[in-house]
Amino acid sequence: MARLKPRTLSGFMELLPERQVQMERMMQLLRRTYGLYGFTPLDTPVIEASEILLAKGGGETEKQIYRFTKGDTDLSLRFDLTVPLAKYVALHHNELTFPFRRFQIGKVYRGERAQRGRFREFYQADIDVIGDGSLDIINEAEIPAVIYKAFTSLGLERFKIRLNNRKVLGGVFAVLGLEERAGDVMRTIDKLEKIGAEKVKTILTEDFSVPEQTAGRLLELLSSGEPMAALEELRGRSELLDQGMEELGTVVRYLSAFGVPADHFAVDLTIARGLDYYTGTVYETVMLDHPEIGSICSGGRYDNLAEYYTDKKLPGVGISIGLTRLFYVLEEQGYLNEALPTAPVDVLVLPMTQDLSAAVSAATALRQAGVRAQLYTEPKKFKQKLSYASKLGIPFVLLLGEDEIAQNKVSLKNMGTGGQELLTLDGAAEKISAILSAAACTPIREPERA
Amino acid sequence: MARLKPRTLSGFMELLPERQVQMERMMQLLRRTYGLYGFTPLDTPVIEASEILLAKGGGETEKQIYRFTKGDTDLSLRFDLTVPLAKYVALHHNELTFPFRRFQIGKVYRGERAQRGRFREFYQADIDVIGDGSLDIINEAEIPAVIYKAFTSLGLERFKIRLNNRKVLGGVFAVLGLEERAGDVMRTIDKLEKIGAEKVKTILTEDFSVPEQTAGRLLELLSSGEPMAALEELRGRSELLDQGMEELGTVVRYLSAFGVPADHFAVDLTIARGLDYYTGTVYETVMLDHPEIGSICSGGRYDNLAEYYTDKKLPGVGISIGLTRLFYVLEEQGYLNEALPTAPVDVLVLPMTQDLSAAVSAATALRQAGVRAQLYTEPKKFKQKLSYASKLGIPFVLLLGEDEIAQNKVSLKNMGTGGQELLTLDGAAEKISAILSAAACTPIREPERA
Repeated sequence: MARLKPRTLSGFMELLPERQVQMERMMQLLRRTYGLYGFTPLDTPVIEASEILLAKGGGETEKQIYRFTKGDTDLSLRFDLTVPLAKYVALHHNELTFPFRRFQIGKVYRGERAQRGRFREFYQADIDVIGDGSLDIINEAEIPAVIYKAFTSLGLERFKIRLNNRKVLGGVFAVLGLEERAGDVMRTIDKLEKIGAEKVKTILTEDFSVPEQTAGRLLELLSSGEPMAALEELRGRSELLDQGMEELGTVVRYLSAFGVPADHFAVDLTIARGLDYYTGTVYETVMLDHPEIGSICSGGRYDNLAEYYTDKKLPGVGISIGLTRLFYVLEEQGYLNEALPTAPVDVLVLPMTQDLSAAVSAATALRQAGVRAQLYTEPKKFKQKLSYASKLGIPFVLLLGEDEIAQNKVSLKNMGTGGQELLTLDGAAEKISAILSAAACTPIREPERA
Repeated sequence: MARLKPRTLSGFMELLPERQVQMERMMQLLRRTYGLYGFTPLDTPVIEASEILLAKGGGETEKQIYRFTKGDTDLSLRFDLTVPLAKYVALHHNELTFPFRRFQIGKVYRGERAQRGRFREFYQADIDVIGDGSLDIINEAEIPAVIYKAFTSLGLERFKIRLNNRKVLGGVFAVLGLEERAGDVMRTIDKLEKIGAEKVKTILTEDFSVPEQTAGRLLELLSSGEPMAALEELRGRSELLDQGMEELGTVVRYLSAFGVPADHFAVDLTIARGLDYYTGTVYETVMLDHPEIGSICSGGRYDNLAEYYTDKKLPGVGISIGLTRLFYVLEEQGYLNEALPTAPVDVLVLPMTQDLSAAVSAATALRQAGVRAQLYTEPKKFKQKLSYASKLGIPFVLLLGEDEIAQNKVSLKNMGTGGQELLTLDGAAEKISAILSAAACTPIREPERA
């Protein structure tokens, strides 16, 4: 028979079992964290009608999209989880209760040029709070708490959430007479970290005719070490700015009650988030030891989620974690906690008799007690059976021979210590559960720092 | 602004939040059950190269597939989880440890004609055990235990797992001189339940020239009320049949040790499973009160998982649950347990003061204690705030006014009973957890039977 060389497409992550367990654990912890804050799980189709997905149209997105026809229907794979959310909320508006808080962890598709660490199929893990007509500012203060809780629950500690407010930026532009070029200036500011102040200044002055002095003043203000104080000097000179300062102040004031330690967030006036769509607080999250990676969790407040589908005003606030890329980066940087148990089971049951009934019953009872158990009955040498357990990192092996069965006991071998004990089956189940729950740990462990 | 009418494609399931919670809970319980039996989670791309997915080629599958080009690559969306598993095992053979036990819960795509209850995007929930060269028969006995545990953990009780063995069928065909038409006869037998014995007999005699007497003898044998006894009479007349009976006997013998009650399984010689690919035990699972739905969980033993990609012999056994269709059917039949809590949170925190710090701190502390808490701060009347909790089915509301704050207490309102108590925050957290864990239930509840 002619055989095809098996392959997985480039740009598509496919993990080995040990790594997959770490990925699943991260998703599970995110689900749990999002749930703690009242976000309900949502699942929408991967395929949507192209006209729906591309209602906004234009730009890079349209070039990258996976689009095709089936029969005479023009279909596309979703490229983010926000557009499907907008469609969902517009479509089901009458059946939803607002504020509507949802999380979604799902795959999205972008046919980007293939390169290391760039994925064409990747998970996003999003949360959004959507109001019907209005939405209280406190939701904008809560988002950093969710980010903080999410990352610390995964085991990450050395990160910082950077906050800004688009009204503050807009207000500053107004004060400096840049109102008419606000969009261009905003997008240029967004590149500050990437290209540096000098280049930003050049673009502002040369491409957008911002007077050199104004550009200098703007950069000085945005880069101030004491941003709130620097803004204070402009109070009263723009209504928009005053409102933005008020909002930013409220967000910052509540962060400690929300449990975000002071060293885990900072107001940073250079955070702009390129998208036109944000209107209030905006967020970025950076890993302190790897700023080069860029933001690992971003988002912000918007005024109108679903303007392409409904005339209802649906303001909201949301963030997105690019989970596949984050996982890739964590692995690259050696942050994945190799001590996290990744074995498919807690105990491997090895029957040492011809008749397997006792072993089968033991495995059944262990599972009943919540212990993950696997029978191993392949006709191999004893050493090879133990080696199977070792290779998979299975922490315990349970041996059942004539002697054990006669005594109504089991021999439990701890693969870590090599020790072996004769126990009742209940005793073995308790021992396994106790040792494993003591050894529980997070999927991420940051390297020791010098 | 011109607006597009939002819509979701037909054949694509998109659930409202309450229903989605039930679906998520089912997936979570399946993950847990599969984990108890040592199946490790796997995730493979939704998109594969068309030549890989269609290596086997032919038939209905190819017509239904979502296939398209991006750049100059011929791509397809997966139509099941078995072909991607075959590719995965062939590709990563040297990095896997065998027997390799994996589960995968993921979306697959088939462009079927749209009709009620048929989905073009649907979840499959699969498990497979793959051996390297050989695989012990005990794995075939364990599969019904996983099915039993999976469905009972969801809350389903009135189902039966029907077993057969392809070697038994092949052996019976050999004894009756039907060896050369085995494939055709097998596929015809597979239709028995659907079209009835008379029509099967007609097809066998007219289309496949089976002598009338032989067809009668075959149908009589397969439909016997005492299948094992009926087979016993043929023992010694076909090596294949004897081997099949031996295997079937072993599987049945171990089922009770595996915890499957006698009334939840039956040997049924009419189960054939159309696919050529099965070679040993085959499974179907029917809902006793809804046989018209057909099998809700099927699978079997095969000798060669990945013959299109590798010359390595990879025997295995696996089953698949068509989860989206099952969920649809359960909802249609009124089996979804409406008592299952579907609220996004356990408690809604209602601040009754201007300053929100105390309420924010209370919500933060509740989350720290593992209680799912949501702040509600929209400027609405008190009645509307309570109505928000009611509409979402949130079981508790926590009120924090000047009085409570002064006493360092909280008022906890039980939305079910209407009762309200003044408690410490810790006391409230304990009360919420205790009441909710007592109220835990399964996502499926079968209707009372007369």
